[in-house]
Order: sequence, then structure tokens, then C-alpha cells
Amino acid sequence: MLDDVRVVAFDIFGTTVDWHTGITEQVGEVFAHRRIDLDPAAFADSWRDRYLPAMARVNNAEREWAYLDTLHRESLNALLTEHGVGSTVSESDRTRLVRAWHRLPAWPDSDELLTRLRHRYTVVALSNGGFGLLVNLVKAAGSSFDAIASAELARTYKPAPAAYLTAAQLLDVARREVLMVAAHSWDIDGARAAGLCTAFLQRPAEKGPYREADRAADTICDIAATSASDLATQLAC
Amino acid sequence: MLDDVRVVAFDIFGTTVDWHTGITEQVGEVFAHRRIDLDPAAFADSWRDRYLPAMARVNNAEREWAYLDTLHRESLNALLTEHGVGSTVSESDRTRLVRAWHRLPAWPDSDELLTRLRHRYTVVALSNGGFGLLVNLVKAAGSSFDAIASAELARTYKPAPAAYLTAAQLLDVARREVLMVAAHSWDIDGARAAGLCTAFLQRPAEKGPYREADRAADTICDIAATSASDLATQLAC
Repeated sequence: MLDDVRVVAFDIFGTTVDWHTGITEQVGEVFAHRRIDLDPAAFADSWRDRYLPAMARVNNAEREWAYLDTLHRESLNALLTEHGVGSTVSESDRTRLVRAWHRLPAWPDSDELLTRLRHRYTVVALSNGGFGLLVNLVKAAGSSFDAIASAELARTYKPAPAAYLTAAQLLDVARREVLMVAAHSWDIDGARAAGLCTAFLQRPAEKGPYREADRAADTICDIAATSASDLATQLAC
Repeated sequence: MLDDVRVVAFDIFGTTVDWHTGITEQVGEVFAHRRIDLDPAAFADSWRDRYLPAMARVNNAEREWAYLDTLHRESLNALLTEHGVGSTVSESDRTRLVRAWHRLPAWPDSDELLTRLRHRYTVVALSNGGFGLLVNLVKAAGSSFDAIASAELARTYKPAPAAYLTAAQLLDVARREVLMVAAHSWDIDGARAAGLCTAFLQRPAEKGPYREADRAADTICDIAATSASDLATQLAC
């Protein structure tokens, strides 16, 4: 079934980079500087909680297309106000925190995985991060893709089918020739619904210390991989 | 003036890859196989001659957006008929020849140039080749960019301003933060008219043995580079 796959499309936040550690650290620096007594890791969780609902409002046409930075900024503003620190965190702090999503550490095994897969496949980034955000992020993380294929190019967000199908169309391949790799069940579900092949890559620490990451066992997918090297092996790379 | 530059955008055909040699070789293979007594290098020239006029018809709204492969196919069909070999060259030959533009050798110094520049800048491919074509081409040539930013993303062709400005917008930078590098005066003129910074990179063999390549001396640009290493040096990379 996977013999036709020519393109491997990677989700980024949580799948190739450790967003939770990166955001927690950068939030922690601002909180320390402003003497804010909040748990940065819990704040990162709350911020991320607003991610899917914010994108859903775009996909449901409740609002016009908005860049991920804009959604991050809005949810950050709301959260800071909710926590009673709206007046403590400056505009430049907020800009810096939104930009934190442009600079996150790769998982230690991501680079080797991408390198192995690129020998055999065209390997692209397919994330809800904006095109420019992803270019910055991938470069800073030292990762190496054959192309950046942001959902921005479809002006809609995953899990909407167009986000996946626009990438396939731009790459001039059929949907079954694309294997979507993600650490989130909702992304795998979206890719499967759009007709792509799917690989769930388990990233146990993806949601940080307080939450459980999605598990392969709970996800319908063509490949269930417990680690990066397991994925590469299953793809004969 | 160039202190603001953050992104270096490279033209591809002729600037980082040697289209003339690659097309001549692949045309030559088909001609030899079909016992066609035409000069492949001259045929490559004639084919390329139809490149700018075909794209101009899209940009002038004389026809709908059409992918570069489609334009290449149409001009190939017309040329083969003109040369009286329309019945000798099969459909699969034609498909192979159109795909020849997906597989061209890099100039020997392109890889080192891109690597040097990537230490300091975000380096992208900005060509009239389609997104998928460029991904294939860059991968086969062993080149390494931070992103592929095809004119297809603007659904218009260089030298129309939107082709350059869409790339800047997607990368979330101002037009003066982009330096366009090309070996063709018409591309440099288009980029300058769109408000980008410009670097002309001389590629003396770019048009093959029968024609003279564009020269820096005839081109208005911010940087005139006589070679890849000259360009890297002028950019302090």
C-alpha cells in the first residue's frame, strides 16, 4: 500500500521540534525578567490549548485567513490578561514570545531521521506554521527539508483537507503518494480523511511534563512508529 | 544599502544550474534514439527562445495560469512540427523531454556558493519553474536551499512584480530585505522594478556555445559579480 509513496510530509511542532521545552524556556525567561510568579510549563500548555480552537475559527469561516503569528498573539494577549499580568508584560515581550514559535529545538533524533528519509523520498515540512515562520524555525533547528509546504499556501489550516491537498498538488503528486508523519492523532485523522497515507510517530514528551502525549495505539494509521529510528526502519531507509 | 538584506533569492535555470548542457544532452539522447539529424544544442536554443514569450502570454492575461511544464510541452510540440519531426517523436519522448527541465546539472560552484551564503542569509530558490519541478530539480542537482519559492505561488511569472513580492510576503520580509541573484538582465530588471535588491551573477556559458550570455556591464544592479566566489566575497560570506 505504501509502495506508491514518493513524498514524506512532516508535521513540525511536536513531531520534529520540541515545542514544549522551547516555549517553556522562552516564556520562563520573560517571566523571570518581569518577576512573574507563574509556572512557564503550565503557561505553555494553556497557550497551546488555544491553538486548535483558534485555527478552527479560520477553517469554519468564522473569520478571514489569519497568519499563525496573529493567532498566537491574540491567544497570548488573552491568556496574560486572564492571569492578571496583562500590564506587566510589554509589547516587545509579547513580540518576543510570539517569535518564540520561530525558534524551537529539534528533537535529538530528527536530523538523522530526515537525512535517512531524504535518500529515498522527497521530504517536506507540512505544518500550520506560516511559510516564513517555518523557514526560520527549520533553519534555526538545523533541520533539512527538500521543501517547506506550509498550510499557509492553502490559506487554511490542518486538519482541513485543502491544507494537505494543496501540498500534494504543488508537489505534483497524487494524494496516495504522500505519507503524512505526525505525533498528533488529529493531524493523522485529517491526513487520512484527505486521502493521504499516514504514519503516527510517537513523541512521548511532546506535551511536556503535565500531560500525556497522543499514542499510536489510539490512532488509525498506516504506520505506527514508536520512535524516529523505528519509522526509518519501517520505511526501509 | 545592502545592510538590510536577510534573504538571498536565486534564479535557477542558468544561474545555479546549467540548463543548456542538461537540455542539449537529453534532447540529443532522444534524437539519437529516433535517428533525427538535428543539432540538439541549436534545438535547445530554439526551445528556450519560446520561454519568455510563452510566460508573457500568461502575465498579459492572454491566457489563464499555466504550469511551466505545460508551456514547455506546447512549445516543444510546435518546434518538433516546425522541424518536420512531429511524427517521429512519440508522446513518451515528449514527456521525457519536458521532464528534462526537472533534471539539470548544477554549475560546479553552485553548491559551495549556496552553502557559504546560508551561514549568513536565508537562501531560497525563486524561479519560474513550478514548485514541484523546482523541488525535483534542486534535489537531483544536490543543491540545498532554505526554501523553494516558485513563481507558481503567485500564479504569475517573473518578471511580473507579484512573482517577486509574493516570495517576500511569504517569507515575511520587506522587499528591500531580499537580494535577487540572477544571470539574466530581464530578471534583474524585474526584481529591481519590484523594489528588491539585485545581484547579477555572470554565467558566461549559460546560453551554450552559439550565443553570448548576458553581461554584468549591460545590467543595472546593486552587485555585479563575475563569478560565484566573487558574489560570496562581495556579500562577506
